[in-house]
Amino acid sequence: MSLASGHPVIAIPGPSPVPARVLRAAHRASPDIYGDELAQLNLHVMAQLKRLAGTSAHLAPYIGNGHAAWEAAAANMFDRGDRVLVLTSGHFGQSWARQLEDMGIVVDRLDFGLAPPDPARLAERLAADGGQDLRAVLVCQTDTASSAMADIPALRDAMGDHPALLVVDAIASLGCAPMMMDDWGVDVLLSASQKGMMCPPGAAFVWFSDRAAARGATGLTTPYWDWNLRANAAPVGMWRFWGGTPPVQLIYALDEALRMILDEEGLFSVWARHAALARTVWAAIDAWGDGNPDIRACVDDPALRAASVTAVTLPGADALRAWVTEHCGVTLGVGLGAADPANALRVAHMGHCNAAMLLGTLAVMQAGMVALGIPHGAGALDAAAAVIAEPA
Amino acid sequence: MSLASGHPVIAIPGPSPVPARVLRAAHRASPDIYGDELAQLNLHVMAQLKRLAGTSAHLAPYIGNGHAAWEAAAANMFDRGDRVLVLTSGHFGQSWARQLEDMGIVVDRLDFGLAPPDPARLAERLAADGGQDLRAVLVCQTDTASSAMADIPALRDAMGDHPALLVVDAIASLGCAPMMMDDWGVDVLLSASQKGMMCPPGAAFVWFSDRAAARGATGLTTPYWDWNLRANAAPVGMWRFWGGTPPVQLIYALDEALRMILDEEGLFSVWARHAALARTVWAAIDAWGDGNPDIRACVDDPALRAASVTAVTLPGADALRAWVTEHCGVTLGVGLGAADPANALRVAHMGHCNAAMLLGTLAVMQAGMVALGIPHGAGALDAAAAVIAEPA
Amino acid sequence: MSLASGHPVIAIPGPSPVPARVLRAAHRASPDIYGDELAQLNLHVMAQLKRLAGTSAHLAPYIGNGHAAWEAAAANMFDRGDRVLVLTSGHFGQSWARQLEDMGIVVDRLDFGLAPPDPARLAERLAADGGQDLRAVLVCQTDTASSAMADIPALRDAMGDHPALLVVDAIASLGCAPMMMDDWGVDVLLSASQKGMMCPPGAAFVWFSDRAAARGATGLTTPYWDWNLRANAAPVGMWRFWGGTPPVQLIYALDEALRMILDEEGLFSVWARHAALARTVWAAIDAWGDGNPDIRACVDDPALRAASVTAVTLPGADALRAWVTEHCGVTLGVGLGAADPANALRVAHMGHCNAAMLLGTLAVMQAGMVALGIPHGAGALDAAAAVIAEPA
Amino acid sequence: MSLASGHPVIAIPGPSPVPARVLRAAHRASPDIYGDELAQLNLHVMAQLKRLAGTSAHLAPYIGNGHAAWEAAAANMFDRGDRVLVLTSGHFGQSWARQLEDMGIVVDRLDFGLAPPDPARLAERLAADGGQDLRAVLVCQTDTASSAMADIPALRDAMGDHPALLVVDAIASLGCAPMMMDDWGVDVLLSASQKGMMCPPGAAFVWFSDRAAARGATGLTTPYWDWNLRANAAPVGMWRFWGGTPPVQLIYALDEALRMILDEEGLFSVWARHAALARTVWAAIDAWGDGNPDIRACVDDPALRAASVTAVTLPGADALRAWVTEHCGVTLGVGLGAADPANALRVAHMGHCNAAMLLGTLAVMQAGMVALGIPHGAGALDAAAAVIAEPA
Repeated sequence: MSLASGHPVIAIPGPSPVPARVLRAAHRASPDIYGDELAQLNLHVMAQLKRLAGTSAHLAPYIGNGHAAWEAAAANMFDRGDRVLVLTSGHFGQSWARQLEDMGIVVDRLDFGLAPPDPARLAERLAADGGQDLRAVLVCQTDTASSAMADIPALRDAMGDHPALLVVDAIASLGCAPMMMDDWGVDVLLSASQKGMMCPPGAAFVWFSDRAAARGATGLTTPYWDWNLRANAAPVGMWRFWGGTPPVQLIYALDEALRMILDEEGLFSVWARHAALARTVWAAIDAWGDGNPDIRACVDDPALRAASVTAVTLPGADALRAWVTEHCGVTLGVGLGAADPANALRVAHMGHCNAAMLLGTLAVMQAGMVALGIPHGAGALDAAAAVIAEPA
Repeated sequence: MSLASGHPVIAIPGPSPVPARVLRAAHRASPDIYGDELAQLNLHVMAQLKRLAGTSAHLAPYIGNGHAAWEAAAANMFDRGDRVLVLTSGHFGQSWARQLEDMGIVVDRLDFGLAPPDPARLAERLAADGGQDLRAVLVCQTDTASSAMADIPALRDAMGDHPALLVVDAIASLGCAPMMMDDWGVDVLLSASQKGMMCPPGAAFVWFSDRAAARGATGLTTPYWDWNLRANAAPVGMWRFWGGTPPVQLIYALDEALRMILDEEGLFSVWARHAALARTVWAAIDAWGDGNPDIRACVDDPALRAASVTAVTLPGADALRAWVTEHCGVTLGVGLGAADPANALRVAHMGHCNAAMLLGTLAVMQAGMVALGIPHGAGALDAAAAVIAEPA
Repeated sequence: MSLASGHPVIAIPGPSPVPARVLRAAHRASPDIYGDELAQLNLHVMAQLKRLAGTSAHLAPYIGNGHAAWEAAAANMFDRGDRVLVLTSGHFGQSWARQLEDMGIVVDRLDFGLAPPDPARLAERLAADGGQDLRAVLVCQTDTASSAMADIPALRDAMGDHPALLVVDAIASLGCAPMMMDDWGVDVLLSASQKGMMCPPGAAFVWFSDRAAARGATGLTTPYWDWNLRANAAPVGMWRFWGGTPPVQLIYALDEALRMILDEEGLFSVWARHAALARTVWAAIDAWGDGNPDIRACVDDPALRAASVTAVTLPGADALRAWVTEHCGVTLGVGLGAADPANALRVAHMGHCNAAMLLGTLAVMQAGMVALGIPHGAGALDAAAAVIAEPA
Repeated sequence: MSLASGHPVIAIPGPSPVPARVLRAAHRASPDIYGDELAQLNLHVMAQLKRLAGTSAHLAPYIGNGHAAWEAAAANMFDRGDRVLVLTSGHFGQSWARQLEDMGIVVDRLDFGLAPPDPARLAERLAADGGQDLRAVLVCQTDTASSAMADIPALRDAMGDHPALLVVDAIASLGCAPMMMDDWGVDVLLSASQKGMMCPPGAAFVWFSDRAAARGATGLTTPYWDWNLRANAAPVGMWRFWGGTPPVQLIYALDEALRMILDEEGLFSVWARHAALARTVWAAIDAWGDGNPDIRACVDDPALRAASVTAVTLPGADALRAWVTEHCGVTLGVGLGAADPANALRVAHMGHCNAAMLLGTLAVMQAGMVALGIPHGAGALDAAAAVIAEPA
């Protein structure tokens, strides 16, 4: 029997749930794109996006997804033959490195498996870069495949006075976990609309510092990707921000979502909520694991886990994912890049996610384990609910 | 700290959650109300509503809510001074009786407290009605205040050959629990759009048998309420069904919702889902009650409990309701008509409700009990998840 | 070839076009109906509705359509056998009179054909009411069938000190033409959501004066219709306003629509817009009629025509209506209650209607007359455009 | 006085009006992006897009706007230093040429002012290309700035057996005017979602022939733009089509819009509608111009005018645009790239546009000319309506 009819719960690491208010804001015919109202709205959204990233630096918006942000940033920072260092903690860091190589950039890698980057290894590696020809250090703040959380300030410290740019992919973390681009000395930051920003997919963003801007165009810089044109668009007009026709409906959606995050709940509260929801998931996993050592979070140390998604090793994960979808209306993330993907899954707690959605997700997971005969420890749901019950 | 930002869960006994598809269907400008397309749609919705009620009898639709259905039915069945028998199992049965009295009808009551009507007491009462001047027996299939579920076939049996009409208010049960109007010998059935039908509030329905129709108009029958005009509207046109301008957007919503219930999930599956979700709630309550005898379902016997809502006695209920709203994004129903309303609440599992929503609701309730120090037995969430895990 | 694909234009006298903003406001799941936010919103909407009617009197809202408003008002004002005077200027006045008769009220009629009521004839008739047993004078401000506009202040004057209540049906005029209930001495005012209020159908409203309230309940007053319960609902709660479950989505729609009318465009500007659009239609009809005397507005004297709809005699009207729908995407109103309905139609300019929609409607009408060979005078569109060009 | 309150008419050459059905289709939370349902939908949309372009060739979709399509196509076809020939008929052709130059491509131009490209001049120019080092001929089917319509088959003929690719920008014409990519021998075709496709902006498309594909990657080809990855994505999965996260909501919108165009109205009917609407505009302009020779379409020969937009020289155009917006709710296009922009404007008749919208737009333009004292010939609206009246 299926008990799935009801509001579906999408617990995948993006596209994440879109608030009803945001969908409503986007439900409108294209307005007068010559009008001042839309131009002012666009400027406001740009300002909000800088608040979100904790920066007063430059911002180039793109119609695109996360992969567009990767290419946009690279096309402005690097030339073919430039050498960069990518710190990888899973599938997305590796994909990013390959995309850079496919653009003709020479990529060195420091691979941390499914763990977050170790600042000490970074420091060591940079110390060995005598000629300092590494143009940049690139890192995912959260690689959703492993759900490792990089410690960006520590990595910045580890870079010392090496001239490489620090480039952070915050696609799966911005709006979920702390990011203070200016305070932390991040040179280039990337993100997209469809995860912590709670919007439909379709917009990507690159924030960049004066230091990054100073490097100037390269042989890879094309008119469409050129971040200077977009970051300095205000006197020219809205179309310049977006390299042509602006994504009107998505601008309305971003405006509403950023108001919810920045002006209503408050960015610190949003971060705290994600942290609490993450600990809730971990409590359940720990309890299940007490009865089955093969159930465990991919990242051992809770201090190194992401706020927005938790990758889990769980025997029978594929069957469990299918069961909770068919019987309970919940979609869990696949075990992307795991050693044994059929026995891995990911639970997202990203963006528009509250205690009820998350506890419901954990509870149907347990129901599925019972139904499928997957061994697991007892008390997981009590433990999860207890985290929710904790005072702030 | 609030963990409420996310899709709100409305676990009140109506208006119940409206599926996104239904809201989308209703999101349209008023079309050509002269057009054949809308006329055909209206006829289709009328046919679907008869399927929903298990009847080939007559149907009169009204723009209105449940209270409108009460008055519409009464104005067609009774005259001032007529005597009727109302079986009450809580607040709504009592309200219904008072509304009938306020219309000038003489109301006898059989009160069952918070329990469902006892067929034996009904049989006994009717046997005493020598002159058989009781015009009708009226009963709520589910009174949401007590969450008692009346056994309609048994009540029909208990009526024997007494000529009174059997009138059933299925406002809070139609589309959730079995209803076979014709097979069960129900003469008049009432319902509304905003509960098991998963639509916005605004439409009320009265189905009535040939036997009920045969009684003819009374001194209370007004042109607006006259059910014959509406039930026989087809040759006249769509406006006649609705006594004037039809509720266009709501007709589109009903069409979509009834398609989901009748043509996609299937009515038997919908009933089975509600039954399973109800047992899930009861399992949690039983477990909590094992640690605190003051936590218990209002209706003792599970066989007599409603499929769509569960009324609960729970010390500190008011504080708990406030806590889960503020901290978790869940709205529970107030303890309507309970002896001690501040220590009572209601959990709805009505209409567009799946395992994830319901388990999430139960889990945040437990979190709240922990946070507020409300004593409760252990293992409730495991027990609830275990029900979800049961094979069909 | 059809040139109909594009935004449909619905130029029928209700349900009228719903602004995109209003549909968007109504597109939301049912919220916490216990919450203070919704209660405050409801109070605000009630206050706005009083502003719209120009009154500080009482207001009873109903889930219903215009026919519900008729019955609601009658059930509070009259008893069976009471005598009233209905002034009729077309189909709807006549229907209203019949509905009253079907409720058991004795109806005298003053029929003005397709012309608005003549105050002198009213004065004369009331002077003849020696015993002053007429309980009320009832009149449609605009009967959409004839598109006659009653002069309410003049009718009030004509009533002198006769104690009858003045009851005005403003269903098709409120929010389009001036209404100052208190200043004009209207005792009872009726309207509904789906015309000048620019909302989906589903809500009806009755405003009533202290004088009307003072008459007290009658033998027709039922609990559902009782206006006192609703008008004095504030201390009881939102459900009491609406006699049960409130029409949540429609309350959001009304809030948005009333904001547009009262707080953004301004009520005086809305009235002036309707007046200008009406004159635009008349200019076209006059010009067409110069070449075909059978084309003419139903009401001769422009001073007596409605602001929201214009009924027209036009040979071949039925064919023309079909042509503009099929070829151009425009729906015109049928010639309701006209002597020769196939040669009559109605053009609505009601609610959410601007110069572009109206001129487009007139232009496709002319195209249809050309295509169908319906004789008509030249220059109608120039004349219509010239009205739009006039300074305010 | 403003008569603007009503459905706004956006008569700019894109983003064009989005049908209510399309907005409704896009109004949904992000679904399970792993699910087969979405994958199948995406494949269906890809097939529909090929039908729209009249091709069985390859298709690469991009999240982006028209400028993204320009860069995507160029990055696949050309290397830095390659020589191409751009035929320009206005602002957009010139912008395209500059964008190519900014990518490092050597651009020869044949400029036709505001007229469409002359095949004879193209033939002559190619004949002079002895070494045949021109890699491609690039042309806008419709440059919205001039509203000239290129004769693609004639240009193809004029190319003879020159090996250059024929690259057509159909951003402002696809879905409005005939395009038979395969029959006409177009090698590469570009378009975007927000004009004839009636969708929100955010998706761009590049169709390319085997011959174009055979050239292989160049030094400009990056992983994000690589059209082969996207065109051959089906075995890999939906994300590969879109170079990462797919624009889910926009895929639903495209599906609905393409259903309307291809499966309901029919592509031939859509083309015929645009042609008729265009002639309607021209009839009005001709008539206005009879009284003021400074009012005229930018393109003299009707056979060379676009089906989707008409650029007009009109003294006082800027004031007129402002007047119709403020007073009538209509937004006209600015005179982009005209010699005297303040005295030029553009009327779009693109996508979701019917006779009522267009005649309304023309009528308010005339009202504005009257109000502002702009001289103009008489009878324009009669002439326009007469075109609408013509049999198919």
